[in-house]
Amino acid sequence: MTTITTQPPTASTKARLLDIMRTRGTVSRVELVGATGLTPGTITNVIRELLDDGLVQEAGQARSTGGQPRRLLRLRGQAHYAVGVQMDRCTSSVVLADFTGRLVAQKTLQGSGSHAPGAMLEILAAQIHNLLEDQKVPFESVLGISLVTHGPQNRIEGTLLAPRPTPQWYGYPLVPAMSRLTGLPVILENDATAAAMGEQWLGDVSAESFGVIYMASGLGGGAVVNKEVYRGGGSNTVEIGHISLDASGPPCECGNRGCVENICGTAAVVARAVRDGPLRDRLGLKDNRAETLGDFDRISSAAVAGDLDARLLLEDAARGLGQAAVTLVNLFDLSTVVLAGPAFSTAGTLLRDHISATVNAAAFNRELQPIDVVLSSHGSLAAAIGGSLQVLRTVGDTKDRRTVPPSFVTRPNQPQLASLNP
Amino acid sequence: MTTITTQPPTASTKARLLDIMRTRGTVSRVELVGATGLTPGTITNVIRELLDDGLVQEAGQARSTGGQPRRLLRLRGQAHYAVGVQMDRCTSSVVLADFTGRLVAQKTLQGSGSHAPGAMLEILAAQIHNLLEDQKVPFESVLGISLVTHGPQNRIEGTLLAPRPTPQWYGYPLVPAMSRLTGLPVILENDATAAAMGEQWLGDVSAESFGVIYMASGLGGGAVVNKEVYRGGGSNTVEIGHISLDASGPPCECGNRGCVENICGTAAVVARAVRDGPLRDRLGLKDNRAETLGDFDRISSAAVAGDLDARLLLEDAARGLGQAAVTLVNLFDLSTVVLAGPAFSTAGTLLRDHISATVNAAAFNRELQPIDVVLSSHGSLAAAIGGSLQVLRTVGDTKDRRTVPPSFVTRPNQPQLASLNP
Repeated sequence: MTTITTQPPTASTKARLLDIMRTRGTVSRVELVGATGLTPGTITNVIRELLDDGLVQEAGQARSTGGQPRRLLRLRGQAHYAVGVQMDRCTSSVVLADFTGRLVAQKTLQGSGSHAPGAMLEILAAQIHNLLEDQKVPFESVLGISLVTHGPQNRIEGTLLAPRPTPQWYGYPLVPAMSRLTGLPVILENDATAAAMGEQWLGDVSAESFGVIYMASGLGGGAVVNKEVYRGGGSNTVEIGHISLDASGPPCECGNRGCVENICGTAAVVARAVRDGPLRDRLGLKDNRAETLGDFDRISSAAVAGDLDARLLLEDAARGLGQAAVTLVNLFDLSTVVLAGPAFSTAGTLLRDHISATVNAAAFNRELQPIDVVLSSHGSLAAAIGGSLQVLRTVGDTKDRRTVPPSFVTRPNQPQLASLNP
Repeated sequence: MTTITTQPPTASTKARLLDIMRTRGTVSRVELVGATGLTPGTITNVIRELLDDGLVQEAGQARSTGGQPRRLLRLRGQAHYAVGVQMDRCTSSVVLADFTGRLVAQKTLQGSGSHAPGAMLEILAAQIHNLLEDQKVPFESVLGISLVTHGPQNRIEGTLLAPRPTPQWYGYPLVPAMSRLTGLPVILENDATAAAMGEQWLGDVSAESFGVIYMASGLGGGAVVNKEVYRGGGSNTVEIGHISLDASGPPCECGNRGCVENICGTAAVVARAVRDGPLRDRLGLKDNRAETLGDFDRISSAAVAGDLDARLLLEDAARGLGQAAVTLVNLFDLSTVVLAGPAFSTAGTLLRDHISATVNAAAFNRELQPIDVVLSSHGSLAAAIGGSLQVLRTVGDTKDRRTVPPSFVTRPNQPQLASLNP
């Protein structure tokens, strides 16, 4: 095993410049001085190193505005690649991004619900392998994988602390196993947190601070505060699915009662629809846990097409989600909420309108500013994209060690696809 | 009017060094190099400026450990002073701190509940005036006042956005009026946020991240995340009093329903006790809004002394507070919660034990680490002390403009006590 050595002290300046270039595309040295407040000398030196490292390349000249023409710089896309894997019970996505953050390839595949963890990781590892081969991306240029899924997580150990989707997943060494299977460094990330990073990158929202409600087969939340993703003490932040709507409501496996996920999450909505026999039959619901998102989509399509029962179910769920959003904005003091995840892909507008109405009737700070509730336009890929971006951002960064757990800084020598027999 | 001009670019380095000295007491230049990662040359230069400005003084030599003895430095206490005013419906506190953060004087006085805003500010201004005179603190050395009270607040305008304690307070120009009355710069701060700053400074908790439940006549919350006070987009963060325990519960003036403040706050507990006639008579409750905290204290004393009815009331409230604390720790990913504010001064242990039991049965991340629920040992002063500290920290700071609203950077020429006729 080789261990990535600690970067020199200027490394987080490097990460900062790389991030600015990633966001702006092409940029001159003068613009970097303006954007960072660093001296021209520092910028020149750091850029020289980045050019030498092959991370940055010259990109022509800016049109002259009178003075000397400015030479432009941009990231070298092929310098590095990163993989983002979003894994949900009902659906998974794998994305490959180049060093500029451009989406090179993507693949949507089955969820983790009907697999043992070892088998699911083998499917994902094979998929990553194929994606790299199809795109002719050299293995050595891949920085690593962000494995994005539900919480609670132990990011240091790289394990999940909940028996979902099945009890086998509880405590399973996901990160070490995925790393052995692929030969790549792996980090574990919370899906809603990754979606927040993805939203920030994809630019659907201009607000510097916003909350994210991420709805897939589970219900999670994320927050970006003054342009930084909120990470709290660990990685189990903004667990809005476990906001209680009724302190004496039904117990949840998390230990709390009346959790919004169990009342308004996709599985809860599907369960209510299934209990209504005629509705179940009319919509052809499968009533099978691996099909939760499919069933939710059937209900969403019917609601959009005018089915009143389906519509009432969704409106009811949206009100509860709106109540959870009130707590989210009240605690984090936000005035923008983004709705992301596959559950918003079919009836997003309907859900958004009802969530918005609830939030804007009850949020504590609505007098200061109305709360803007917006739909993500990359709903089902935002989390995987955010994960890949997180990996790209580790280049040159020594500042925020919390984003780089020990499992990340060790790179196994060789991929060992299918070597794992759990 | 004079306006404080913008500081030079090194100013936030100054603030950083001042803060380290404020926390550590005495410190050598070598220790400052170690603590900041700055070069010895930079430290020497900045310290020279701070000595010239009279903010720092020499403090003898450290005992030799073999090499050359190290000269020690510390803040000069008399360099500046700051005032913290905590204002609640039932009780107020004024504290005076010197530049080292040492509490020079304090005074507890009546609450704002029975006064018009103009009259209350005159009482506070006179009190500040007397405190400065008693302590022979020169007016010119006072940096300003942090006025600490409930939210929602508009910190830019310096107004409250709720009709509490009476409708007259809504939108009243508190900051400009207080500034005119005292001749000092004034900032408005959220009481629970200030309590979080106070707790951090007073050192009751060693955790780098913690939540605060602040209970006075209202119920608020605060959070410190990785040593930084969480500020969100504005100043109305962590409004835990308006976490709903029951989405179909009684409506709150905030717009939400079933808010924990209306079920478990001091006024709600007192109202329940008053409805129980024999309990009301036995405890001699006053049943008067200006006496809410007094009545809550009577109930607390009775509970501690073994009165079963009083005890059950408090246990019930503590369970609700515990449920709100679950949401607080779930959203911010915390493993420490501090209980602060005057409501915890008499039956703090009883309340803490029940809050702790509830949180540790239901928090999402309790498997990673048990949630530590601790009582502040400076409960009723933490908010005022946190406010004064916030003012001290503005010296040398240009980085975080959000803590210094426009109203702060303008210093009226002369105090104009009693010049305000609203």
